[in-house]
Amino acid sequence: MGDLRAFAEEADAGLLSPVSASPLVAALTGDRAVLAAILAVEAGWAAVLEHAGLAPAGSAAVVASAADAGRYDVADIARRSQGGGNPVIPLLGDLRRNVAALDTAGVGAGKAVHASLTSQDVLDTALMLVARNTVSAVLADLKAITAALAALAEQHADTLCVGRSLTQHSLPFTFGLRSAQWFHGAAAAGRQLEALALPVQFGGAAGTLAAGSVLTSGSAATPFTLADALAKQLGLAPAPAPWHTNRIAVTSLGNALAAVLDAFGKIAADVLFLSRPEVAELAEPRAAGRGVSSAMPQKQNPVLSVLVRSAALQAPGLAAQLHLAAATFNDERPDGAWHAEWPALRQLLALALGAAGHVRELACGLRVFPDAMRRNLDLAGPLLLAEGVNAAVAPLLGEKDGRTGKEQLQDVVDRTLQVPPPEQPSTYRRLLREAVPAAVATDERLNGLLDPANYLGQAGEISRRILAAYPDFNSPTPDPKGASRG
Amino acid sequence: MGDLRAFAEEADAGLLSPVSASPLVAALTGDRAVLAAILAVEAGWAAVLEHAGLAPAGSAAVVASAADAGRYDVADIARRSQGGGNPVIPLLGDLRRNVAALDTAGVGAGKAVHASLTSQDVLDTALMLVARNTVSAVLADLKAITAALAALAEQHADTLCVGRSLTQHSLPFTFGLRSAQWFHGAAAAGRQLEALALPVQFGGAAGTLAAGSVLTSGSAATPFTLADALAKQLGLAPAPAPWHTNRIAVTSLGNALAAVLDAFGKIAADVLFLSRPEVAELAEPRAAGRGVSSAMPQKQNPVLSVLVRSAALQAPGLAAQLHLAAATFNDERPDGAWHAEWPALRQLLALALGAAGHVRELACGLRVFPDAMRRNLDLAGPLLLAEGVNAAVAPLLGEKDGRTGKEQLQDVVDRTLQVPPPEQPSTYRRLLREAVPAAVATDERLNGLLDPANYLGQAGEISRRILAAYPDFNSPTPDPKGASRG
Amino acid sequence: MGDLRAFAEEADAGLLSPVSASPLVAALTGDRAVLAAILAVEAGWAAVLEHAGLAPAGSAAVVASAADAGRYDVADIARRSQGGGNPVIPLLGDLRRNVAALDTAGVGAGKAVHASLTSQDVLDTALMLVARNTVSAVLADLKAITAALAALAEQHADTLCVGRSLTQHSLPFTFGLRSAQWFHGAAAAGRQLEALALPVQFGGAAGTLAAGSVLTSGSAATPFTLADALAKQLGLAPAPAPWHTNRIAVTSLGNALAAVLDAFGKIAADVLFLSRPEVAELAEPRAAGRGVSSAMPQKQNPVLSVLVRSAALQAPGLAAQLHLAAATFNDERPDGAWHAEWPALRQLLALALGAAGHVRELACGLRVFPDAMRRNLDLAGPLLLAEGVNAAVAPLLGEKDGRTGKEQLQDVVDRTLQVPPPEQPSTYRRLLREAVPAAVATDERLNGLLDPANYLGQAGEISRRILAAYPDFNSPTPDPKGASRG
Amino acid sequence: MGDLRAFAEEADAGLLSPVSASPLVAALTGDRAVLAAILAVEAGWAAVLEHAGLAPAGSAAVVASAADAGRYDVADIARRSQGGGNPVIPLLGDLRRNVAALDTAGVGAGKAVHASLTSQDVLDTALMLVARNTVSAVLADLKAITAALAALAEQHADTLCVGRSLTQHSLPFTFGLRSAQWFHGAAAAGRQLEALALPVQFGGAAGTLAAGSVLTSGSAATPFTLADALAKQLGLAPAPAPWHTNRIAVTSLGNALAAVLDAFGKIAADVLFLSRPEVAELAEPRAAGRGVSSAMPQKQNPVLSVLVRSAALQAPGLAAQLHLAAATFNDERPDGAWHAEWPALRQLLALALGAAGHVRELACGLRVFPDAMRRNLDLAGPLLLAEGVNAAVAPLLGEKDGRTGKEQLQDVVDRTLQVPPPEQPSTYRRLLREAVPAAVATDERLNGLLDPANYLGQAGEISRRILAAYPDFNSPTPDPKGASRG
Repeated sequence: MGDLRAFAEEADAGLLSPVSASPLVAALTGDRAVLAAILAVEAGWAAVLEHAGLAPAGSAAVVASAADAGRYDVADIARRSQGGGNPVIPLLGDLRRNVAALDTAGVGAGKAVHASLTSQDVLDTALMLVARNTVSAVLADLKAITAALAALAEQHADTLCVGRSLTQHSLPFTFGLRSAQWFHGAAAAGRQLEALALPVQFGGAAGTLAAGSVLTSGSAATPFTLADALAKQLGLAPAPAPWHTNRIAVTSLGNALAAVLDAFGKIAADVLFLSRPEVAELAEPRAAGRGVSSAMPQKQNPVLSVLVRSAALQAPGLAAQLHLAAATFNDERPDGAWHAEWPALRQLLALALGAAGHVRELACGLRVFPDAMRRNLDLAGPLLLAEGVNAAVAPLLGEKDGRTGKEQLQDVVDRTLQVPPPEQPSTYRRLLREAVPAAVATDERLNGLLDPANYLGQAGEISRRILAAYPDFNSPTPDPKGASRG
Repeated sequence: MGDLRAFAEEADAGLLSPVSASPLVAALTGDRAVLAAILAVEAGWAAVLEHAGLAPAGSAAVVASAADAGRYDVADIARRSQGGGNPVIPLLGDLRRNVAALDTAGVGAGKAVHASLTSQDVLDTALMLVARNTVSAVLADLKAITAALAALAEQHADTLCVGRSLTQHSLPFTFGLRSAQWFHGAAAAGRQLEALALPVQFGGAAGTLAAGSVLTSGSAATPFTLADALAKQLGLAPAPAPWHTNRIAVTSLGNALAAVLDAFGKIAADVLFLSRPEVAELAEPRAAGRGVSSAMPQKQNPVLSVLVRSAALQAPGLAAQLHLAAATFNDERPDGAWHAEWPALRQLLALALGAAGHVRELACGLRVFPDAMRRNLDLAGPLLLAEGVNAAVAPLLGEKDGRTGKEQLQDVVDRTLQVPPPEQPSTYRRLLREAVPAAVATDERLNGLLDPANYLGQAGEISRRILAAYPDFNSPTPDPKGASRG
Repeated sequence: MGDLRAFAEEADAGLLSPVSASPLVAALTGDRAVLAAILAVEAGWAAVLEHAGLAPAGSAAVVASAADAGRYDVADIARRSQGGGNPVIPLLGDLRRNVAALDTAGVGAGKAVHASLTSQDVLDTALMLVARNTVSAVLADLKAITAALAALAEQHADTLCVGRSLTQHSLPFTFGLRSAQWFHGAAAAGRQLEALALPVQFGGAAGTLAAGSVLTSGSAATPFTLADALAKQLGLAPAPAPWHTNRIAVTSLGNALAAVLDAFGKIAADVLFLSRPEVAELAEPRAAGRGVSSAMPQKQNPVLSVLVRSAALQAPGLAAQLHLAAATFNDERPDGAWHAEWPALRQLLALALGAAGHVRELACGLRVFPDAMRRNLDLAGPLLLAEGVNAAVAPLLGEKDGRTGKEQLQDVVDRTLQVPPPEQPSTYRRLLREAVPAAVATDERLNGLLDPANYLGQAGEISRRILAAYPDFNSPTPDPKGASRG
Repeated sequence: MGDLRAFAEEADAGLLSPVSASPLVAALTGDRAVLAAILAVEAGWAAVLEHAGLAPAGSAAVVASAADAGRYDVADIARRSQGGGNPVIPLLGDLRRNVAALDTAGVGAGKAVHASLTSQDVLDTALMLVARNTVSAVLADLKAITAALAALAEQHADTLCVGRSLTQHSLPFTFGLRSAQWFHGAAAAGRQLEALALPVQFGGAAGTLAAGSVLTSGSAATPFTLADALAKQLGLAPAPAPWHTNRIAVTSLGNALAAVLDAFGKIAADVLFLSRPEVAELAEPRAAGRGVSSAMPQKQNPVLSVLVRSAALQAPGLAAQLHLAAATFNDERPDGAWHAEWPALRQLLALALGAAGHVRELACGLRVFPDAMRRNLDLAGPLLLAEGVNAAVAPLLGEKDGRTGKEQLQDVVDRTLQVPPPEQPSTYRRLLREAVPAAVATDERLNGLLDPANYLGQAGEISRRILAAYPDFNSPTPDPKGASRG
């Protein structure tokens, strides 16, 4: 069994999830972080009880000291959690032993441990604590990301590129507007994340606060005031009532994290395409040792985006797992659904934070190649402007051979598409000139209509509106490099 | 092909989805409703253009007349949608033909059709319109449901039952609190649904509003004022900018619908268990022809809950589908992700509305059997009160043979669990009496501690708090029976 | 209610699912096909009973006549299925009425209807029948697809292109091998689909065959011989025992359909990229009215691939739905899980068949542009051969300045990557020549190493092995155009 | 950073996944097991190369020695895997360093490391190796489970209980048949698992075996013979061709694991219900420390089933993740999809093995209470036999007042259901006696019809058929207790 034990300690250090294999992610979402959060809830509760006169003076300090996560063997507690089905039960045994040992003054600190709580109270609250810390870190990254994207939007407000729909070139576009729309996605997801309430849980064994009522009887406190005090102590939202059987706080959190990863996934999808050799409009920032291949010495892979995309592909299923648990949450505590929540919630947190670090680095260091953008825009040549030409010219054309102006211009397009692509630009110009009398449009006017820079619509104004809609996501940050990520 | 055509017209009338096979659901979410919404967007746009002086006077009336859904062949348009990949394209052809035919006064109404729009503008806006109508109907049901559950919570505030966790009896409970927690879930989901913004979409072919800019140039209008006017015309939320590539409006809608179905699924799971013959605490309302079996003449199946549960099991995957589409939304219009959104969104709407009707009927007609609740509560007898007894008595017991009071009382429980279940109640009472000196607790005091009605904690207060937290979901409705559903 | 009824009849004709909006798909998977399959099971059962002497002579013919799907109102049955929770129950009422009316000879045909069956027997068997018909059609398409891909593999065995990994160019490749790998995916999925057993279901009300035992008592038949006869009658696989609670036949079917859509999704993903204007190595076949845009007159969208991708993005969630149902299949018939199976199974069938038609058209008409493939291959120039150069030359280089041959060549690559991309080809050739003494490799040898046609490894042999591994998926078909699809 | 490092080492020891928090699961599926498998692939490859004369004599031994997993720092490699996007790349650096250090004889063992492989070759093959070991352990558990269930099926062939559908009592049943159907599910899933081919992967950088061709040129070996030799060396299936872009081996594995968890989930769902206090037909085996609650001293939770159910609820989403990856596997190596496979595959393996251990313990120690089964069967009393009574008696009844025999008997049922449940048994007997003339059925005959033991249909024969269909899953095992699980 000795060997097995060593394995257990390294059950998952991130080897198969490079996107989140960073020390920061592990520190905020790993098993030790969960264990520390469970202990923080118990210590916070002891403090609340002592302050309310419901636990002996001095007990909170003893519990706080015993609640040092370093005192506990995570792998051993994980293994023992099979017995009761959750990690709080074995941890409590160890915690009580440590409290007894540390209560050298004999204040009776044991009375402050877990008094009137149930394991769901502790684990739900602890996971909200883990979530709060992780969400906080994700938001810090998000604000650095949106600041960088806003800067790109402004810097490239006039950088022409091509818009694409269903893979094909549609209309002239700007890289500034593309950046602004990336900002839009990230900021909207960030706002949703900021709006989350991450509530404390306190209901007792069946959600009636029965033990809590016994505990507080004859005191000025009530179970509700204790719960509010615990929320305040831990920096969580208060809850009007126990929510042990209604998991909307959990599903909303999962949905908000998935939405963040959706926004990241959209950015990654675009960067992955735009940094392909045939396109070459963008490149990921370089860093030593990044993007290397084990077999091909010349390759530079867009690893940041690849990892981000891998996370974005995983998030929807994990968010669904949380809804599935909520939808099958039978009784006052369910027979499996609650347990099915935990790994999905933790993995979503880890993926969001891991991906946020990568997108931050990507957004802050993205290399932009306006020449390539222009080259690709010119691939389709003036045909790309056909929509605008039609809109401007068709109403001015008289009927001819029983065909409307619009039909005449569509005919120009159709005939152009008959010739090989390289000849299409000149053919289109020629046929168009033939179809439009000079009285309707001079050469200069036609040339103007065929200049993509003149057919950008509201690209600039849309960018400005987007940035203005999220002022709190659009301010310079002290450390745009995100250099502190491991 | 004649035969095939008939089949196509009945591709899906709900035969395999009984939970949503109602005329109301079909009317609000079916293909004809979608087609009607697409036409409503085009008609609304014509009105906006005419009002802004950008389409000929009189054109809006012609388009409105042509936009009568009854004029179109849904199945044929569906089949032709394979060509361009979406239904707007073939529908537009038919619409333009109808507009031309109806424009007998020759006002030029054709100019008002789809001017400067792209098919994504129309379809996104139309689906938001379908969503708004459906959400509205779901909310009406939800408020009838919560009103009924609130009434149950009040009526059964003192109806004792047993709380259950991990399938086992945990502590005394009340049916009032259970109803209040069902209310809690439904009301919280309803509030989330109410808070949704369902925005209009207007971006043009690439999201730059290029054609819209040409259209409005020289007029007092801008593409933004037109979009706001369209939102107002259709009763949708305005959008600060095109959101064609950022799908958080769609994923938030999906998440809110899934949360509604989570709340319904939780209720259904409880009712399904509580109406089992061995438990018999609840029964579904009876209705002619409902719950019958094709083989067993005596069976009365809880069909409402079965159907609701079937919907709740489907919703998480559908909500995930929307996130997956959002996370892979490449370019200015993606190469498959957008198309993958539509069926999932519609099915979520249909399941939510279908299930809402069933839960409404369930909540308004639920049959409650307090005697059975009491009988089940008494199954475990006084052992169920052990937590409370320990909490009250342990601190008063002196140490004995080196064991704390708590340990002495746990010993009473352990010894009780050695005897066969039927003897456990009397054994527990006897051993407890032996372990607790009369000086610590009189017989009367012990009996009081062993009365479940005395160990309900804050059950009543929690219910009151929950109902108070959602005042707008807690008022009598004119038609509590929901009798109008098909 | 009159209006609602009309809507119900068009609840879903495919408007929001263009990928499967074809008459063929509707004919094989639509509600009327399901209804027809249910009726076919009842008619088949009557025939089996009559043949076993367990129903009156002549009854099978009456039931067969009554079982004409055209006699029934799908939408009405769908609506009434809410009562018992499944469509068999209301349909049976109508069927019995029709049998009575048609039994003009008074043979007592009613006794042959549904005798000793339960609704799950009928619906499970009917869905297997629907599946068999659809799978059969999918396989026909698959074989046309694989035949076309095999032809491409052979035709383009020597067509050079570039291999790509993590979006970047990796090594020389051939379009023949790419086609062979597409074949590989499609054929392996097809083989899995062919291997499925789609079994008959017969268990009676609780899965004990109790009524069937009464029915057959005193006869030579047993419930097992009847079930086998029904399987034979319907062309399904026999089942050793009722499988009403073990859904591996359903999940295996779902998995096989998802695997087919995985293979299609892979092809679509590649075609979508390779037909982008910047890449232009492939183009979809043209067809009148396909690929058009509502706003942009010049666009030709790769709609076949877009629709196929939209289906591939939906399949995983639907297959998961079937597993979820299986995993929660409680009791002898579950309280919602069974009902949650039906829509997912049907949608998977429809998506697979719809997508198969599109992939068939795509594979049979794909336009291939070898010049563009060569142009893209040459983008990276000789650097792409660095792996091969290193493998061939490094072992022959002596150590130099304490660096191995491998390190010396990596140094050449690293230095090349310092210069701008356009200069990299010539720089690499120059630095390589400097690093490799002529004694180690002549100019001719180096040029040979830098010719991509010389570094294709086993591309041809791999293709041959793949095609040889699936001989039954690699033969010419009579109708390679797939022209008959609607 | 020192602190972060410690956290990283305990990123996931299983604290939030009690179902799989066992040393055995960690040993077979944890990060160290993955790392060991990667090293085993490299060592196996060195052996293959040396044996083929393609690596220096003695090199395999050096690589094997360097490939001891204990030499590597898992957490550090995980962190560094962010650079190239997979763990093989950083591990190779360390491996090469160790090989160089251990090659004290200077045989040139470094030449045997990773020669002509790409990281996907190594990681795909390594994960198949991890899968093979885990599947093997799952199958061992499965065979112990099926042996135990077969024993229950035989032992309880005549133990009467009630069949349930849609939560309600349907017909008499036996616990033997229920056990046989559990066996059915587990054995069918086991057979599917056994039939899997877990293939070796060898394709080189782009899947052309280019480097492998250089390596083998001039030797008797070919890349294909090397791949076959590697498969043999590692105990994997050979592959006719590289499958790097066709993931059906992975999706089939995922599907088979999900099917195992479906079968377990079905068993768990039944045990959870049947061990509820109100039902009490079954109880989980007791074990010290299992099933305890942190708050309620008297509770005995069915923790084995709860944990198994939590796994069954997670598996469908994970299997879907694998299909999603397969469906989006673009290019010769994709830009995120491959990376999204790994965590899902590993988690499925861990959940299946973790759950298998719990089901094994459950099946081998299940406590069965026939008296409770009989008590529950009698709840509905003779009404439960109405189907059988009708089948036997209706054909013998003459028409009466224009009503058929069947209608007369349905009337008896309907009238019975009007009286309160406790009076229904006697009422039904009385009304039935009144409705059926003694000439049609004597009292003895009616009593016989109302004895549930006489209406079991083919329960015994079905069980025998099921057990006979899976002979290899139905033999005694040496260690039925599963006592060795941690």
